[in-house]
Amino acid sequence: MLSPKEQYRIITKGVQTLVNEEELMQKLQKSYDNNKPLIIKLGLDPSAPDIHIGHAVVIRKIKQMQDLGHQVVIIIGDFTGKIGDPTGKSKGRVALSDEQVRANAKTYCDQIFKILDRDKTQVRFNSEWLAKMTFEDVIRLASTTTVARMLERDDFQNRYAKQVPIGIHEFFYPLMQARDSVELEADIELGGTDQTFNILMGRMLQKSVGQEQQIAMFMPILEGLDGVEKMSKSLGNYIGVNEPAEVMFKKVMEVPDSLIIKYYELCTDEHPDTIDAIKAQLAAGANPRDIKYGLAKVITSLYHSEEEVQKAISFYDAAFSKKAIPDDIPELTIAEGATIGSVALSFVEMKFVPSKSEFIRMLKQGGVQLNGEKIGFAEIDKALADGDVLKIGKKNFVKFIK
Amino acid sequence: MLSPKEQYRIITKGVQTLVNEEELMQKLQKSYDNNKPLIIKLGLDPSAPDIHIGHAVVIRKIKQMQDLGHQVVIIIGDFTGKIGDPTGKSKGRVALSDEQVRANAKTYCDQIFKILDRDKTQVRFNSEWLAKMTFEDVIRLASTTTVARMLERDDFQNRYAKQVPIGIHEFFYPLMQARDSVELEADIELGGTDQTFNILMGRMLQKSVGQEQQIAMFMPILEGLDGVEKMSKSLGNYIGVNEPAEVMFKKVMEVPDSLIIKYYELCTDEHPDTIDAIKAQLAAGANPRDIKYGLAKVITSLYHSEEEVQKAISFYDAAFSKKAIPDDIPELTIAEGATIGSVALSFVEMKFVPSKSEFIRMLKQGGVQLNGEKIGFAEIDKALADGDVLKIGKKNFVKFIK
Repeated sequence: MLSPKEQYRIITKGVQTLVNEEELMQKLQKSYDNNKPLIIKLGLDPSAPDIHIGHAVVIRKIKQMQDLGHQVVIIIGDFTGKIGDPTGKSKGRVALSDEQVRANAKTYCDQIFKILDRDKTQVRFNSEWLAKMTFEDVIRLASTTTVARMLERDDFQNRYAKQVPIGIHEFFYPLMQARDSVELEADIELGGTDQTFNILMGRMLQKSVGQEQQIAMFMPILEGLDGVEKMSKSLGNYIGVNEPAEVMFKKVMEVPDSLIIKYYELCTDEHPDTIDAIKAQLAAGANPRDIKYGLAKVITSLYHSEEEVQKAISFYDAAFSKKAIPDDIPELTIAEGATIGSVALSFVEMKFVPSKSEFIRMLKQGGVQLNGEKIGFAEIDKALADGDVLKIGKKNFVKFIK
Repeated sequence: MLSPKEQYRIITKGVQTLVNEEELMQKLQKSYDNNKPLIIKLGLDPSAPDIHIGHAVVIRKIKQMQDLGHQVVIIIGDFTGKIGDPTGKSKGRVALSDEQVRANAKTYCDQIFKILDRDKTQVRFNSEWLAKMTFEDVIRLASTTTVARMLERDDFQNRYAKQVPIGIHEFFYPLMQARDSVELEADIELGGTDQTFNILMGRMLQKSVGQEQQIAMFMPILEGLDGVEKMSKSLGNYIGVNEPAEVMFKKVMEVPDSLIIKYYELCTDEHPDTIDAIKAQLAAGANPRDIKYGLAKVITSLYHSEEEVQKAISFYDAAFSKKAIPDDIPELTIAEGATIGSVALSFVEMKFVPSKSEFIRMLKQGGVQLNGEKIGFAEIDKALADGDVLKIGKKNFVKFIK
């Protein structure tokens, strides 16, 4: 087992908020002294079965703690899933059958176990304890918090202010999640920052029953390939954990340079020392493309075999690198001072594009590469040099000769 | 069975608010047509075991419906009683043992059955259905209403505004009461005006499960003997249903004249026609004291045997009426213009009081009667007439002779 200090460094890498540092250090020390693993809780809602590396941020963090020897427990929120929202107003809370819940949970777990070690992970369904609760138990649970406290939660606050109805039963979803923590005697619970209220409620409930309070650990939101929006399937800016190695490798290469370090921190299990070294290289002027190449290799390796990764790299090199220019490509003799714009009509003659305006559209949309690098509309007036190779669309190449 | 119209007249006598008239008329018609009694619900909190005729207002109303042939069901809120308030903050909600709840319920019922017909009354404990509810059932129950709706209740609204904590579990007390109405398929629920929110919640819940909605019937608050404050044990302005006939009779005689009709409406089962006749007598100038004498007889008869009532009347007449002056009482010759104050020292000489100031204290506190009528300090300078009889304390009489 690593020393508590070393563990602390790995555990807190990339974490956005921690409640709180001191308690975490104490728990790690105690765990180390007694040789007793901490209980790490992650609650999953079985309604969204497909995960991408944005979702995986918390799972990777958990994996790092698993590798440090701690006990990971995945809670499948099947009780909530089976009840759904009796008012039928909340889309995410349609009542699911037992079979649906189990099926969703299986799909989910199959993906999670691409990251976590299946043999070292406990999976529990919260209906195990929640379904047994009587009205009296529920009253006791409800009595641990107040209406005012509940209405502090952002979404409740907004809805209450805007007079959008909040069903009384909705107050129970945070309480159920908190009850799960008590059942597990969880030491650490992880979530995205949108889980702040619910995870802190777990601390509250543990305290009220005399348990040691869990550490609340919140991971930042991961921006997608556009570098701006939260990674999401519907925005198309995501990298799915189930995507083939070639797709994954290529997508990582599209990550904006400004996010390289964040992706290293949140989407890989690299040691903080390694990440520090990479920061130093970038600061010293290393080509971000080269660093990203390494990142793509690391991330792809997390989800694919070495063989698949090698194939993905070869594929990428062939399709997207300078070397990938075929030997026998058409040549075009140009005058001194010729620009991409000034020779564009030739591409129509060569049947590469149906019209100049179509070429410009492709240029704007990133479908044109100069010497293996994607270029945009800003480069339309760039002077061409002898030997420059332009790639238009997926397979049309032209070499300029002066 | 009386016609629905006649029943309606009796049922609505003295009622403060009815939700709503039209539905009540429909229910009475349907009950009459199908020869099927209505289910009349009264919920009782077993925490306050001693009842006075202020509490009895709703029970008398129920008794009138029982006499009309409807089915009365008393719900003992033992489930709530046994849970209490888990936060321990609400005084009225201390968790009671099974034995305590049963014992309180028995005391309560013994008093209720001084009014209701024991054989025609169903008594049910709501733990019968509430204790069986699972977390899932509770969620469904909670989903029938909203936080905003709940916070409309006066006491919640005030506490929320003043930032006095409201436990989430407190939202369940109205819901439990509503659930009781669903269990009973209640047609009418009665309560004081302080029960408005809870009883209307019963209507809401019945509607949400597809039942016909109960009629909500609210009885006014009965002022006590002071004519101002709500009748209450702690204020000492009450008439207990367990009090001896003499005490009860005497206390009714102390009711302010302005409340005679209200007491007739709320504390007796007299027919509306009878009450109309009494109103007419009063309007025609009848002595309110005589009317009250009749009221005292009616009310005392509701809780005591004819023999006891006769004894109480004799006792009252002997102690509080003019006739009650014994034959052989000391006489005191007084000068023309003598007042109670001017002859007061004689009462000290006669050993009726230890001092004049003590006599004045008794006068101020209502311990002195002139010709059988209580007098106060304002009458200290009243000129005495030949033959006037003064009663000082409980047994000392003096007759003035000029």
